[in-house]
Order: sequence, then structure tokens, then C-alpha cells
Amino acid sequence: MTIRVGVIGTGTIGSDHVTRLSSQVVGSAVTAVFDVATERAQQIAAAVGAKAHASWEALVAADDVDAVLIASPGELHPDQAIACIRAGKPVLCEKPVATTVAGAIRVLEAEVAAGKRLVQIGFMRRYDAGYLDVKAAMTDGTIGEPLLAHAMHRNASVPDSFRGEMSMTDSVVHEFDTFRWLFDSEIAAVTVLAVKKSPLGSAELRDPQLVVLEMAGGEVVTVESFVNCQYGYDVRCEIVGSTGTVSLDNPRTTVVIGGAGRREHIPSDWRERFGPAYVHELQTWVNDLAAGQVTGPSTWDGYAATAIAEAAVQSYAKGQRVDIELVERPALYV
Amino acid sequence: MTIRVGVIGTGTIGSDHVTRLSSQVVGSAVTAVFDVATERAQQIAAAVGAKAHASWEALVAADDVDAVLIASPGELHPDQAIACIRAGKPVLCEKPVATTVAGAIRVLEAEVAAGKRLVQIGFMRRYDAGYLDVKAAMTDGTIGEPLLAHAMHRNASVPDSFRGEMSMTDSVVHEFDTFRWLFDSEIAAVTVLAVKKSPLGSAELRDPQLVVLEMAGGEVVTVESFVNCQYGYDVRCEIVGSTGTVSLDNPRTTVVIGGAGRREHIPSDWRERFGPAYVHELQTWVNDLAAGQVTGPSTWDGYAATAIAEAAVQSYAKGQRVDIELVERPALYV
Amino acid sequence: MTIRVGVIGTGTIGSDHVTRLSSQVVGSAVTAVFDVATERAQQIAAAVGAKAHASWEALVAADDVDAVLIASPGELHPDQAIACIRAGKPVLCEKPVATTVAGAIRVLEAEVAAGKRLVQIGFMRRYDAGYLDVKAAMTDGTIGEPLLAHAMHRNASVPDSFRGEMSMTDSVVHEFDTFRWLFDSEIAAVTVLAVKKSPLGSAELRDPQLVVLEMAGGEVVTVESFVNCQYGYDVRCEIVGSTGTVSLDNPRTTVVIGGAGRREHIPSDWRERFGPAYVHELQTWVNDLAAGQVTGPSTWDGYAATAIAEAAVQSYAKGQRVDIELVERPALYV
Amino acid sequence: MTIRVGVIGTGTIGSDHVTRLSSQVVGSAVTAVFDVATERAQQIAAAVGAKAHASWEALVAADDVDAVLIASPGELHPDQAIACIRAGKPVLCEKPVATTVAGAIRVLEAEVAAGKRLVQIGFMRRYDAGYLDVKAAMTDGTIGEPLLAHAMHRNASVPDSFRGEMSMTDSVVHEFDTFRWLFDSEIAAVTVLAVKKSPLGSAELRDPQLVVLEMAGGEVVTVESFVNCQYGYDVRCEIVGSTGTVSLDNPRTTVVIGGAGRREHIPSDWRERFGPAYVHELQTWVNDLAAGQVTGPSTWDGYAATAIAEAAVQSYAKGQRVDIELVERPALYV
Repeated sequence: MTIRVGVIGTGTIGSDHVTRLSSQVVGSAVTAVFDVATERAQQIAAAVGAKAHASWEALVAADDVDAVLIASPGELHPDQAIACIRAGKPVLCEKPVATTVAGAIRVLEAEVAAGKRLVQIGFMRRYDAGYLDVKAAMTDGTIGEPLLAHAMHRNASVPDSFRGEMSMTDSVVHEFDTFRWLFDSEIAAVTVLAVKKSPLGSAELRDPQLVVLEMAGGEVVTVESFVNCQYGYDVRCEIVGSTGTVSLDNPRTTVVIGGAGRREHIPSDWRERFGPAYVHELQTWVNDLAAGQVTGPSTWDGYAATAIAEAAVQSYAKGQRVDIELVERPALYV
Repeated sequence: MTIRVGVIGTGTIGSDHVTRLSSQVVGSAVTAVFDVATERAQQIAAAVGAKAHASWEALVAADDVDAVLIASPGELHPDQAIACIRAGKPVLCEKPVATTVAGAIRVLEAEVAAGKRLVQIGFMRRYDAGYLDVKAAMTDGTIGEPLLAHAMHRNASVPDSFRGEMSMTDSVVHEFDTFRWLFDSEIAAVTVLAVKKSPLGSAELRDPQLVVLEMAGGEVVTVESFVNCQYGYDVRCEIVGSTGTVSLDNPRTTVVIGGAGRREHIPSDWRERFGPAYVHELQTWVNDLAAGQVTGPSTWDGYAATAIAEAAVQSYAKGQRVDIELVERPALYV
Repeated sequence: MTIRVGVIGTGTIGSDHVTRLSSQVVGSAVTAVFDVATERAQQIAAAVGAKAHASWEALVAADDVDAVLIASPGELHPDQAIACIRAGKPVLCEKPVATTVAGAIRVLEAEVAAGKRLVQIGFMRRYDAGYLDVKAAMTDGTIGEPLLAHAMHRNASVPDSFRGEMSMTDSVVHEFDTFRWLFDSEIAAVTVLAVKKSPLGSAELRDPQLVVLEMAGGEVVTVESFVNCQYGYDVRCEIVGSTGTVSLDNPRTTVVIGGAGRREHIPSDWRERFGPAYVHELQTWVNDLAAGQVTGPSTWDGYAATAIAEAAVQSYAKGQRVDIELVERPALYV
Repeated sequence: MTIRVGVIGTGTIGSDHVTRLSSQVVGSAVTAVFDVATERAQQIAAAVGAKAHASWEALVAADDVDAVLIASPGELHPDQAIACIRAGKPVLCEKPVATTVAGAIRVLEAEVAAGKRLVQIGFMRRYDAGYLDVKAAMTDGTIGEPLLAHAMHRNASVPDSFRGEMSMTDSVVHEFDTFRWLFDSEIAAVTVLAVKKSPLGSAELRDPQLVVLEMAGGEVVTVESFVNCQYGYDVRCEIVGSTGTVSLDNPRTTVVIGGAGRREHIPSDWRERFGPAYVHELQTWVNDLAAGQVTGPSTWDGYAATAIAEAAVQSYAKGQRVDIELVERPALYV
């Protein structure tokens, strides 16, 4: 049984997904593609034997589309996801599920109305070997009871159009989901602290920043966001438990000794670092669909991340701690 | 286009290959299986919708078999590989291509007679991300001109039936191929040195051992073989170049701090360590077949490894350096 | 020229100092010792050929005492330090210079009145090879402009009498001085955050904790304090600059591979970790005294650390950010 | 009690020793200095308040010289050491004790005739924290029973006058002593293997080289010697035991992350790497002398190293394994 996927949006991540579904994921085929950049969509469709549709609505409706992958701009996600839900088609929606809490709640309500899980949100870190090993060490007794965590999220650089609050909605949003998942707990409050500004990067960019997350269970997480660190893509964390700690390290294959001493490589960007996690995510999704289920990060997870990001943007603006209030959790997501 | 594969031999590695071809490799299907252990073959065949054949000859001849994967005992490899060659079917033959030089030459001659490459030998390390990074550092100038290497090949333990010379044919044979490939050079001589015997393991087992390889280009490689090291599967090497070195490290995802200090995991066995390399090997093979070619390690590589292993066993027995003489290299393999 | 030192207090650290001055520091001799535990003082004095005095006042006044090392309980430090200042004798005072800001200011005023630096505070980290390398990387351009830092300060365990605010005055106080020194900047505000309590340790102990330091220059430092981490003494930090980072690592001599994987040792306590730093501190102090000067951490540094600790204890109690106001800095300390 | 030391030879290592004895070693003073470079000797003597003697014989005879440190050219060591022995004065002789076996035996016989140990040879690695930890792990059960070892000895570069056999007498000689000491066993045979020559360095220099040591107890050690490796001074080893391994690592204080990835420093030369070991060696020697004993590496150790080096030079020339025959070990050294 082959899952026939339609892909909406063929930018960097969308076209990467087309390639992965076609040549790295067993049991899937890309049969439909849509992008407002018509020519690119046609080229990509042609390369994998898919049809380039004239609208995303047509793609969702197509008979040869069993499931949809949404990789369009974030503002469009709620409408597109809701259309899929109404068509009864499973959807893997790249984060964020919505750029506003209101939008996220619309998707939540549509899925609850449908009465079953159809939506999975693209938090691919949950499929990364490193994070899975971190979670295992947090639950198998290796570090005792997890109490707090330190995380850093660094990107080599961002375009001049990138503003400081986008760190919350674009970069740190991954950390929001990561620590909800790792601690199996909601985030109760968020505080964004201003830090001495890097002399590099645009004048508008407040960078780096420190974010303090207070989990509902009392655990605290410090997250450093640094989107212009120059040297690479460096995502790490250390979880501190009552008897030990576990740290996510950058993957390593080799060590080079030479003029600069003993060196280990650091990934240049997220495509290098999380490429295998994306494949694992898609393979799991396709396997799940073939088994008639959806098990990945839910619309609830997407809603929570959006709500936290909104609070973080408030905290960023006001320089104060902001409590996070979530709507009641529907039974579908328990 | 789907490559329909028949798998001969369903022991540990054969059944792993069936699983990989069915659920981890895009574009392949297992349609036929054979094993003298009839019941196991039938169970494995049933699980993937394949047919369990009554003989390997029938499997090779089957119309719905486009290519064959040989994972039977090594003594059978030449006859089975030659049958595939004569049937014009591509074959991925687990190492060794043959347990004797005479057997390897028979396969060589059959393939040369066929006039085209049909055989690939299962030296999966060439598909490991770590070794690929080592090779890149040897050729892109990172370490200058490669001059010598140190390698260790350690297994946690072996059964009591394992004798010392089997280290050469079973464990170190991977190093023979690895350094031929890394240095792009034949091995000219081999010396096996006796080392103080570990008090653990059977009385018959000479272990650990040190093997010195002299490459045709003058590079020298020291290989430690330790099949009863107790603590895990630890395969590493350091290549020393004229301006720096590159070391293969064990893969790492996390670091644990606790009672025993700062710890990085070491793989427990070769299935854990090289699982991803096997998938990469098979995916590349299937992609190659779909493109009508065979590009992996050749029968010549298999023959050379067998010739070196035979020389190593001699050196093991005599305690002396043994020169390695190869037959002339057929044009097919240049 | 030999500097004759009198040591007040012969507990763990005081008796360690006696040993170091006698057998590891060139150019010094311990000629006088005092402790309220008379018998212990006499034993220690006898072992190094020193005199056990009947009071610390007598020790300070003794003709054969060129300089004094104070390792008594913290409450006594101001009176003892002031007595030394009035006697014109240089003094190395273990931290804290005083347990209250008022006490610290008394010492400050006495030294200012004396018109020259006589007091050095025992912030030994400034003499640790690791921290010195961190500081070098912060000032030689290696990491660009330093912007923020993450620190962890973990002890294996504490006695049941240890209460949570003592983390601020006893453990984290080292971090206060460390980051003032590393960033060459005062600390403007401190916030102590409650974290999920470890299930281990006494019921009274709030542990671990997170402390956020805001430097006057805008840099922010997160400090984890965990006095009951079980596994060892683990003090590390990462300084994040505009183009790179530098991390203090635990010292390493060897790597052990065995049942628990690849292991690096973690120090068991501060005596192991900072033993060499103490020797370096004392040797530098003695060399300085022989050259007629005092160059180490000053009374001002001791006062600042006490003021920050007092603010941290307030923040601990109130759960709020506390601004730190220092008195005007006397010219003597500029 | 102060040990008054006379230092013969004020080249790099001799003048380093003068500095160390004067300012880093407790209980010693340099009272006499000799060098054929008269002016340098006088400057160095003046700096530490010592007398520059007109001959080394006069220095040995001087009343204010309790012990002698020999750091002159190796050819002079036997005569100078024997003169000290006859004067009844303890001597710390830099390696080699002699450049020929005959010379070493002369010293051996003189010391045996004196009837007590007066001579210590400057194998400073035995005082290095790293090697001491390696030895501890070899004897406390951490790695089970030690069976074999891999060592590398790399220098950044050598002058053009350095010829290949000097690697044996100058660099690898440290490894000869190290493994005799670590395994507590003599070396029974040595084989020097030619390796592909580095394109860098003088045409006369055969470099790198591989040396195989066979211990009397059956353990085997491979030693890589690379005196022109370009990137630094890199001395490491891994000892393989029956249940685990221990590796000597380069010391580490900090880790830098930046353009070239994650970096650990490698020492630039032996003075940086082994500076602390030299201080420890001298402090132990001075403490021993104050206690009326000599406990460090003996003349026998020096003789054995010279005998192995001579055999290694033979093996280097002939390209063959050479057995090592030692004279009978005098009771003084048991």
C-alpha cells in the first residue's frame, strides 16, 4: 500500500519534503504539488511524476491524494489544515499550526468536530536520535528525577529582515515544544530577558536573548536564543536530574587534529543537523497512515506552542514574566 | 520501478536484510527467500509477502527475482554467485566472496566471462558516514598526504568455537578492505604478531592480536584485533597525514554525567554500529540497479580481501611476514 | 627572603593552607598558628615547627609573623582583618571578607584609612588554569565580544544543616566574584528562581536553584546552583561571544573505556578540583609580599561579593529581582 | 634544610631547571652553575645568586654543592655522573645516562662499587599526572590485565640536522622507559618499520616511523614516531587490558567553539606539555634527598633505555627485528 501525498508549498522545506517522500521514505509517493510559484511547482512535480495543481483547494480535493503535507507560509496553515480535516484527509502541517492563538483554536475545533486525529504538526525534533536518547535518559532512571534544563539554540546568521521577536516564533518555538515533550508537562510562564546586543547583525535585531520557561510541574528551563552566532547551527541542551545529567551533543563521526588543535565539526545549518530526523518523521507518519492512525505531535501541541510564542512575544515587548493560560484540553488530545 | 530481490540465507544478517529491503529501502521488494532452515524461511517470507523457495537454484531462476542477495555460509558463495552471473542477475554477496582464493578466482573468471559487473561485495563500511568522512579528509587536503594509520577492531565476545585465525577471516577482513579503499592501494604484505593472551575467553583463542599491513604505496597500518574485549563493539582508526590526522570516532548523540563520571556510550555490537551503513549500502545498490549499473565493492575487492586473509592466516601460523601476490587485475575492474 | 606566615583557623581549609605554605610554596614558612581547638592547633604547629598562640591577637602581634592568613569562621573575619591592617601586616582572608555588608564596609574603611592595600581575599578561582584560559579567550578576540554566560556550580552533597540561602553565601558567591572578574564589570541585579526541589536532601533544603545575574555592562549570566547533585563536584561555564564561545571544562588526564562506555573522571570535591589553584594563589601572594605588593582580589572585591550575596538572599526570600547598590568605590581600589 | 644544587649545562633544559629549582621547588637552592658558554653561565648564576664555576669538576667538588643536576650534552654524562658518584654526591642526570651501552655500564659499575643509589635519571614522564593515572588504571583493576598498547609520539618539527635514527635515541627513548615502567617489565625485542616518508622535512629524514616493542611478559607495544607532524606536540597512548582500556589524553582546560568547530588545544611543545612534570620530578628528588634517599628512575633504567635505543638504531639500519640482551641486573637495582 502506497500513501499518495500532496505537498502544498515548495520552498526550501517543501521541496526537501518532496525529495524525501519520493526517494527516502518507503511506502509513499508524491502525486500532487501546489505552489503560488507555478513554474517551480511544475518543475518539482515533473521531477517526481506528480501533478501540479492550480490551487491548494484542488490538491486537497484530488482523488489521488490520500494525505497532505502543508509547507506553505504560516498564515495559511489554519485554512489549509481545516480544509484537509473537512475532506477527511490526514495532514502533516509544518510548524506553526497557526501564527495566532485564534487561528490555532480554529484548527483545534475543526479537528475536535471531526472526532478523530487527522493533524500532525512538524515538530521533527521528536524524531531526532539525540533527543530520543535524551528522553530515554529522563525516563529510564539514568539521571534520577528531572529537575531543570539548560538549552542553547544558535544559528549562524539571519537575514536583515529578521526582528528579535521572530526568535520566539521561529527559533525558540522548537524549544517550547521540545521541553513540553521532554518533561511531559505544559509551560506555565515565560520570561524573555534582554542581553547585551551582539555588535554584529542589523541594528533592529535584539540578539542574543535569554528565555526562562517555568514548567507546570515546577521544572525550570533556561533557553539561550542566538540567531547570529556566526559559527554554525548549534542546538544543545543539558537536563539536570536528581542523580545525574544528560546532554544532547552535536552528532560526531570523526575528529580532526591539525593546526587548530583537536576539532569536532559543528553543523552548518538545520538542514544538515536535522535531515535524518525529517526522514524519520516522514517515515513514521507514512507508516502510521498505512496503519490507519496518527501518533505524532498533535494540534494541541501546535496550539500550545503558538500560545507560548504569543506570550513570549509579549514578554519580549514588556520585559516582564508572562503567565500562559491555555483553553481546556479537549478529550481528543488526552 | 521496483527491484524484486531474492534473499538466500535467513540467519541474523540475512533476515536483517529482508527487513531492511522491505521497510527501509525505497524501490525494492523481497519476493523470494531461501534457507535450509525451511520453517524459518517460510515465516520470514510470509511476513513480507515473499515466496519461500525449495532451493537456492530455484530462487535464482525465478522470474520475479530481478536481483539476488547472498547471505548464506561463506563456502557456498562462489557457486551461488556464479549461478547468478550465468543467469545475468545482479548479486549482492555478503563477504567473503569466497573462503579460499581459488573460490574467489572462480567468481572473478565467471564475471569476466560475462563481460560486465554483476557482483557487489557486502563491505558495508564504505557506506558508513564515519568512514566516508575519514576518506573525505584523506582526499580533500585536510590532513595533507596520508602516511600511516592505526586501527582497532574490538568485539565484546565470541563463542568458544571461535579460533584465533578466524579473527583474520572474520573480523580483520573488514580492515583489509577498509584500508585498500581508504588508501586506494593494494596491500603488499601482512604480519600477524602474537600478543599476551587475555586470561578471558577459551584456551584455544589467541586474542588479542596485532596485524601490520604494508600498503603497495608504502603506507603502513597497524590493526589491533581483540574479539573478546568484554566492554562492547569498538571500531576506530586514526589516519596520520603529513600535516594532521583524522580519527573515526564512535557515533555520539548524548553525554551522560553521573556516578561513573562523564560518559559516552559505546555500541554493543556491529548491528547497532553499522545498521545505518547497511541501509545506505542497500539503498545505493537498489538505486544503482534501477539505473542499470553496479558501482559498489567489486569481485576484485572480494578476491583481494580473501587473498590477504589467506596470507594473514599463514602469517598467524608461522609468525612471519607474508608477501601478498595477486593475479593480474582484469580490465573489468580497472 | 622568607615570608613568615601566621595562620588563624586550622579547620579543613586552614590546615590545607598550612601544609601548602610549608611544603608547596617557595619562600614561605608557617611560624604561628591559632585555633580555638587548642589541641589541633598545637599538633599542626608542631608538625611544621610553628608556635601555637593562645589568641589570634597574640598571633597578629608576634614579631616573627610577617603576614597573616585568616581561615577562621566568617563572622570573625572583619575584626581579625582590621587588626592585621592596624598592625600593618598583609593578610590573605578566606572568603567572605565579612558575612554582612556592614562588616565588609568596616574592613574597607580600615584599609582606606591605612592608605594602602594590605588585604587579599581568597577567591582562588582567579588562579585556576582553566578560568585563566577562559579569561584569555574573552580578551584576546577568540570569541569576539563577550555577551552572556551560563554557569553550573554543583556539589555532591551537603550536611543536613545546610539551608537554601546558604547556596548564595557559600557556593554561588564564588560565581559572583568569577563573573565580576571575567567581565570586568559590577553586577547590577540578581534574581533567584525556585526550581523543582530534588527529592534527595533534607526537607529544608531548596535545591537546585537558578540565579540570573545582570552585569552593569548588559551581559547576563545564568547560574545553576545544585548542592546535592550526588555525582561529584562539577563547576563549569560557557561564555558566549559575538563570534564564538569558550567553555571551562573539568580537567582531564585520561579516558577510560569499559563497561560504562567511554568515561572521563569528574572531581569528587573542591579540594581535588581547585587544589592547584590554591597553591598558585599562595605562591603568587608570597611572591607579591616579597616584592612589597598585594595584587590579588581586593577588599572591594570581597565587599562586592558580600553585597551581592546579601541581595541574593533577599531575592531568594522574596522571589523577586533585587537591584544591587554599592557604596562609592574608594580610589584605593580603582 | 635546603638542598644546595649545582647545575652542569645551561642550555634550554638546564636553564629551565635552574629556574624551577630556584622559584618552584620548595627546599632547594641553586648554588653553582657551569657551562662551556661562560657568559651565559655567569648571567644565569647571577640571576639566582649562584657561583659560575670554571669547570664542572670544580662544581662537583664545591663544598656548597650537596647534589648535582647534569644537563650537559649526552656524551659527557658518564664522566660527570661517575665523578659525582665518587664524590658521594647525589646526581639527577638528564637522559640519556650515556649515548652508548658501554658508557652506561661504566656508570652502573661505578654506582654498584659505591654500594648505594646516588643517581636518578631524568625520565620526567613518571612524574606526569596523566601517566600516573594511566599506571593507576593498569594496576587497580580498572582495565583488567594489561595486554598491549598503542603509543604516538609526535613533534611539530625538527631542525634539518635531525636524522631518522635520532628519533630512536631522542624521542622514542622516552617511550622505551615509559613502557618498561608502565608494564613493570623489560623490553625483549624491538623492530623499526619504515613508513611512507612525509613530503615535508629534509630529504635525509626518514619520518614517520613505526616501532614495535615486545615486552618480556608478552605484551606488545606499537609506537608511532613522527618528528615533523607540523601541528604540535602530541604524545598519547592507549593501554588495552582484558576488560577495558585507558588512554592518556592531552591536558584540557577549556573548549573553544568557533569557525573551525569545537576545538581543544594541543600543546605546542614538550616544555608546555611536561613543564609541571619537571617541577614534580625535581620536588620529589629534593624531598627524597632531604630524607636521605633516591627513589626515582635508576641508572639501571637509564642503561636499559640506552641498550634498547642502540638495538632500535640497529633495527632501523637493517630493517629487521633485533633482540635485546641486557647484562645481569645488579642487586642494587632489584
